[in-house]
Amino acid sequence: MPSIFTKIINGEIPCYKIYEDDKTFAFLDIHPETRGHTLVVPKKEVDKLYDLEDEDYFAVMDTARKLSSHMEKVLGARTLWKVVGTDVPHAHIHLMPLDSTWQYGRTLELKPEEFEEIRAKLAL
Amino acid sequence: MPSIFTKIINGEIPCYKIYEDDKTFAFLDIHPETRGHTLVVPKKEVDKLYDLEDEDYFAVMDTARKLSSHMEKVLGARTLWKVVGTDVPHAHIHLMPLDSTWQYGRTLELKPEEFEEIRAKLAL
Repeated sequence: MPSIFTKIINGEIPCYKIYEDDKTFAFLDIHPETRGHTLVVPKKEVDKLYDLEDEDYFAVMDTARKLSSHMEKVLGARTLWKVVGTDVPHAHIHLMPLDSTWQYGRTLELKPEEFEEIRAKLAL
Repeated sequence: MPSIFTKIINGEIPCYKIYEDDKTFAFLDIHPETRGHTLVVPKKEVDKLYDLEDEDYFAVMDTARKLSSHMEKVLGARTLWKVVGTDVPHAHIHLMPLDSTWQYGRTLELKPEEFEEIRAKLAL
């Protein structure tokens, strides 16, 4: 069965899309720990980042730095990167702008219009 | 003034070294959040990962996956990756094996012989 991320990439589940190229996809985490919390995902569905072939792995890392650099310019806050991988078995990197409202483990409740506002700011 | 990581790389400050190549260096964090907590650092001293040139950036990412994959084999625990960058202004990735003893924000006190034992296991 395809992962929830593959369904998002294929447009079967809606998302707030930030970025897409031929190998990678990025969208807002629907349970954000911070405003702008983004997931960067390889289109190839593998469990762990280092299960990826070089080309896909380095594409994910390239997208992560591109988005992270853009986030900092737009939001004025450094971005925390996190790879955990104990939740969805489809490799992904969390990018979280560390603004003053961030608290470890707390999830923000945002309205659709707030997600959309953030998406519009961060989309590349 | 060189960063504390540059001093470690140059051998001016001792460390428990895990890995070294021409562009990257890795060693045990002396204030580990988990057993095997490792820092992967580019030899080039820049503040943020995405300040690096392609060659150095991708070298760091290559070392991170190599060590992370090895850690999981040796320790049998998935590895959390974290890039924060609000502490030392020399880009680095935290690799933290998520064993059952890990608790967010808690630092372990390890004896030199414990560090050495972990180093010997993880060194590549």
